[in-house]
Amino acid sequence: MALLGTSKYAQGIGLSGVNPDLASERQTASFSVEGLTTLLDGRAEHTRVRRAVVEVIERDPVFSRENQYFQTQNERYEAAVRKAVHLQKKMHEMGWREDGPEFIYIYRAVAGDVAFLLHRVFMRSISVLGSDEQVAKWIPLATKHQLIGSYAQTELGHGTYLQGLETTAVFDTTTQEFILNTPKISAMKWWPGDMGRSATHTVVFAQLYVRGKCYGVHPFIVQIRSLQDHSLCPGITAGDIGPKMNFEHIDNGYLMLQNVRIPRENMLNKFCEVQPDGTYIRRGSQKINYFTMTTVRVSLLSDEVILPLMKACTIAIRYSAVRRQSKLNPGEEEAKILDYQTQQEKLLPQLAAAYAFHFVNNYLHKLFDRGYKEIQERNFNSLPELHASSSGFKAMLSQYCTAGVEICLRACGGHGYSLLSGLPSLYTKIVASCIYEGENTILLLQTARFLVKCFAAASAGQPVPQSVTYLAAVKPGKCPAKNKLDFLNPDIYVEAYQHTAIRLLSSTAAKLQDLIQSGVKKHEAWNQCTVQLVQAAKAHCHYITVKNFVETVEKLENKTGIQKIMKHLCDLFALHGIFSNAGLFLHDGYISGAQMDMITASYLDLLGVIRKDAVPLVDAFDFTDKSLNSALGSYDGNVYQRLYEWAQKSPTNQQVQLLDYSLANSLLARAEIICFSFNQSYTDKS
Amino acid sequence: MALLGTSKYAQGIGLSGVNPDLASERQTASFSVEGLTTLLDGRAEHTRVRRAVVEVIERDPVFSRENQYFQTQNERYEAAVRKAVHLQKKMHEMGWREDGPEFIYIYRAVAGDVAFLLHRVFMRSISVLGSDEQVAKWIPLATKHQLIGSYAQTELGHGTYLQGLETTAVFDTTTQEFILNTPKISAMKWWPGDMGRSATHTVVFAQLYVRGKCYGVHPFIVQIRSLQDHSLCPGITAGDIGPKMNFEHIDNGYLMLQNVRIPRENMLNKFCEVQPDGTYIRRGSQKINYFTMTTVRVSLLSDEVILPLMKACTIAIRYSAVRRQSKLNPGEEEAKILDYQTQQEKLLPQLAAAYAFHFVNNYLHKLFDRGYKEIQERNFNSLPELHASSSGFKAMLSQYCTAGVEICLRACGGHGYSLLSGLPSLYTKIVASCIYEGENTILLLQTARFLVKCFAAASAGQPVPQSVTYLAAVKPGKCPAKNKLDFLNPDIYVEAYQHTAIRLLSSTAAKLQDLIQSGVKKHEAWNQCTVQLVQAAKAHCHYITVKNFVETVEKLENKTGIQKIMKHLCDLFALHGIFSNAGLFLHDGYISGAQMDMITASYLDLLGVIRKDAVPLVDAFDFTDKSLNSALGSYDGNVYQRLYEWAQKSPTNQQVQLLDYSLANSLLARAEIICFSFNQSYTDKS
Repeated sequence: MALLGTSKYAQGIGLSGVNPDLASERQTASFSVEGLTTLLDGRAEHTRVRRAVVEVIERDPVFSRENQYFQTQNERYEAAVRKAVHLQKKMHEMGWREDGPEFIYIYRAVAGDVAFLLHRVFMRSISVLGSDEQVAKWIPLATKHQLIGSYAQTELGHGTYLQGLETTAVFDTTTQEFILNTPKISAMKWWPGDMGRSATHTVVFAQLYVRGKCYGVHPFIVQIRSLQDHSLCPGITAGDIGPKMNFEHIDNGYLMLQNVRIPRENMLNKFCEVQPDGTYIRRGSQKINYFTMTTVRVSLLSDEVILPLMKACTIAIRYSAVRRQSKLNPGEEEAKILDYQTQQEKLLPQLAAAYAFHFVNNYLHKLFDRGYKEIQERNFNSLPELHASSSGFKAMLSQYCTAGVEICLRACGGHGYSLLSGLPSLYTKIVASCIYEGENTILLLQTARFLVKCFAAASAGQPVPQSVTYLAAVKPGKCPAKNKLDFLNPDIYVEAYQHTAIRLLSSTAAKLQDLIQSGVKKHEAWNQCTVQLVQAAKAHCHYITVKNFVETVEKLENKTGIQKIMKHLCDLFALHGIFSNAGLFLHDGYISGAQMDMITASYLDLLGVIRKDAVPLVDAFDFTDKSLNSALGSYDGNVYQRLYEWAQKSPTNQQVQLLDYSLANSLLARAEIICFSFNQSYTDKS
Repeated sequence: MALLGTSKYAQGIGLSGVNPDLASERQTASFSVEGLTTLLDGRAEHTRVRRAVVEVIERDPVFSRENQYFQTQNERYEAAVRKAVHLQKKMHEMGWREDGPEFIYIYRAVAGDVAFLLHRVFMRSISVLGSDEQVAKWIPLATKHQLIGSYAQTELGHGTYLQGLETTAVFDTTTQEFILNTPKISAMKWWPGDMGRSATHTVVFAQLYVRGKCYGVHPFIVQIRSLQDHSLCPGITAGDIGPKMNFEHIDNGYLMLQNVRIPRENMLNKFCEVQPDGTYIRRGSQKINYFTMTTVRVSLLSDEVILPLMKACTIAIRYSAVRRQSKLNPGEEEAKILDYQTQQEKLLPQLAAAYAFHFVNNYLHKLFDRGYKEIQERNFNSLPELHASSSGFKAMLSQYCTAGVEICLRACGGHGYSLLSGLPSLYTKIVASCIYEGENTILLLQTARFLVKCFAAASAGQPVPQSVTYLAAVKPGKCPAKNKLDFLNPDIYVEAYQHTAIRLLSSTAAKLQDLIQSGVKKHEAWNQCTVQLVQAAKAHCHYITVKNFVETVEKLENKTGIQKIMKHLCDLFALHGIFSNAGLFLHDGYISGAQMDMITASYLDLLGVIRKDAVPLVDAFDFTDKSLNSALGSYDGNVYQRLYEWAQKSPTNQQVQLLDYSLANSLLARAEIICFSFNQSYTDKS
């Protein structure tokens, strides 16, 4: 390659310059990109702090992810540990505190690729579930990293159904100890992060037995590895569960316990306790436990679900403005693929969804902040609504964003399939969010159960939580829209979403009632309605998301340019949802076929409108090239040069070239030499 | 783990025994599993030959894939080369010939994990595009593996749009040579398989220039590596394009050419030739070229698209019969997750689709065999229909099966996300089938173009190909079904699919016409209709698939048990398609809301019916445990034991345990030692 100078191969673009096809997209932005970034961050000060954190992290070579796509699982893990350790030093050096304004941006800046994240869950569970004495003993040790904590809940045989956990903890009155055991293989702890190799301690969830009586699942602090030499403690079998679709940097582990004895004080006992004589005491409300699980689901949405979709949109849209393929009109130059309607229809609804979900995430955080205040005042009334919201939105957003990232990947054609595009790793990671912290179908059914109850209450004229008061507003009728422009009126489409959400819920509730009245057992009847209950729960979340987007846009009245483009995105999100789920809206004739044609026309028109601002709209997400880690998505659009230069660094190109081919007299035999030369040194024979 | 005997951990099942939860599923099969396997293979003799091939391959440790999930890209490639070489020996040893009955089962048996597959494409392109002299020169060399061939078409800047390729081949009359060049970085060949490290020769597609005039894209045989020492030839820059989402075993490569001279005889010249004086001659029909590309699309459907879905169904359904989670009824034992309606709704439609696609694949092969005979008789009339069919079905099947594999993966919860489930690698591989051999959206638009033409012809009373004669049958009307059982009548649902396919096509054709008549330029009008044209093309393929499934079931009249269950699957495939695309059927009122409720009821009923035979239906696919390579999907259902034993072999568990921890006095510093002990030897200090 030395013969062929860079300049000749740089498509006429200086390497430091921006591809003119991308530069031109930025010249016509209809709004202030910086203004929109500020809106997304909440305020200018947040943007400043975020950028400062990102700059510090990205300037430090320890945090580099450039080689990530070339690394083995072991190498990824080692890098993650190195980063975690280095991050502690860096935070100390920079004066960033866990309660400081920088903290929330650190994880985003390191792009999640650090070890010991479960250490924080370990600490949180002790803070929430432990007594004052337990907090006083363990939290300082954990804070000073005198131990590495993990959180061992899931077992080989049990995930979502916590009551079914099979690990046992039997209280021994004579020694004042709990004896922990893994009675069968399905009871083995499986999946806990940081447990395969790192953790010295973990919180184990086990069935508590006292004098032969089972008191259900309780949390216990168990040391699993020596603080002296990191060897496994007596009675402990533990290791790494092996390769996964992603998360190679995390040592998800397994754990078996054989007659492991821990002192009585190691059961986390804020809410219940086994006294020395074996008396079991329950105190206070356990409801707060659910609240912890509930908040985790909401807290992961931003970094694990919405950001990946924003990144995927940034990569795919920038690439689509640079990639030219085929001709829209004969005689012209090849068109940017972003100018094809089918490409717009793939990408722009994902872009609109990324904005919709960013705003609904803000809504959820407000809901939870309010709920948290109430709960601190011992008012638990909002728990069911919070639980239903966190479940439904975690499920809806993770499913939608996973599908969106996959669409972005496939929309980039063959190059999207290269790890160097950054898209495959976004996909293989986000898909896990559909499963962890509650499998999505189970979660949607929990939301549905809440909705069915509220619907019954609302129908009976009883008060219901604020987010579901609309369920009382059942009214038949038809959509009043007369032409395609009417469907750009938020009142029209919000009403359509509301109508459909109510219809799905009421018809399923009626089916459930009919089944029970016809003699089907309650649980069996519920099972027979679950496909439709899932539909109803999704429709509810979709409605809230659309409504919230509309309300957010209304509040932007003093930001004209931004309000206008956000209105377009809101319209697109809403109409795409109707277009893609047409059956739900047509079913009872609320929307007619003719109106669906108007919706389709407005929807397709919007694609052309938003396409003009597509690149500025992803620029506003404000991702650095390093955070995207993508040959296709970088700010300058020099995609081919970057792909080529990066590929040459791949381990697959570190081949020894000098071989003694006289060893082989057929090409097939030679193939063996060629291909196995990585591990064997033929060079010394040549 | 030595302390804890296997028997205690084997869930009460002998390791050689079958999990009772899976065994019981097989006792109640309503049909002969062996009979269905025979039906899928075509005849009993095929089943016998297939099993013999599989046995020979799987008995040979060289072909083992057990460590595949632990391997790096380099290791995968090396193993694939080793397998390719060994396969040649094995075929010779077994007397398996390329034209023998065993051949088609070999690729399936090695699960695609071999190198040098492009060598066959290299040979085929010479056979099809080369003159008799060229065939006589190159094919024997290739057959004897005196060279390793590749096929260099795609460039960094061009995939689907072949006319846009930028590589040049300029004829030099003085030396009677072509001079090949890569004029800019986007012209670099990128993606060709076997080219990164293996190939010595390749067929390069380049723009032919003679005396300054461009004659378009032509194929040239170019040697890229020395046959003596495998070093790159003068003027050649080549290497591996780096990590991908899957296909780690293939060395997809890049190639740059700088003034590479090849003799005039190296242009493949069956259909066109540059004479010594530079005169360009075109002869014969080039249509046959398109036919080659067309057949490739159909030939990949079985192994690359349908088999992966069958494997995913086998894994997910067996696991769902073994996995118990939560309770359907209070007081009972935990339920098999396959008994939950939502789990059935995820998996059983995928199972039905796998059967539907197997049968439509048979239909396509018959269509192509007939077409091939006609073409050999120089009758090219069927080419447009064949091209449209191969494009549309490749797109529809790859998209559907990719989504299906993803559903199966997610339906297995956390364990599905482990590579050891076998599901992630099925997904990351099949998703590429949506892109390669023609990006799906482009392909569907080619089908749509054919349909629009046929629709116009049919409307004008002109003859159209057999598969689209239905387009002449436009008639308004309503679905005559009166109750949910009517929707188990194939006439009813086939008619509904036909009606919808015609409606989508006719309304889009009308929109296209309107736009053009209103003054929009033809190409721009086409672009504005593409979202709907894609819908119409999919609806056409969906209709043909349903119709073909119905006809296949009708022909099974002498196999009562099999016919009955196939009828259920056919009904399920059809009704699931209507349920999932309800808007398309409700749009013009052909199906009413009340009828959609009947369809939903029948659809949900069918889930319960087919659930009873779900395990026998996947058993009939007849995959060995080794071919599934899955801890969750094996025949005996001992999933937890297998996960645990396999995970222990992971490189992530090959950790040195004896370290001198006195080196570090804080746990964080110790973490660095722990985690970096793989590559560094601290043991000698202890």
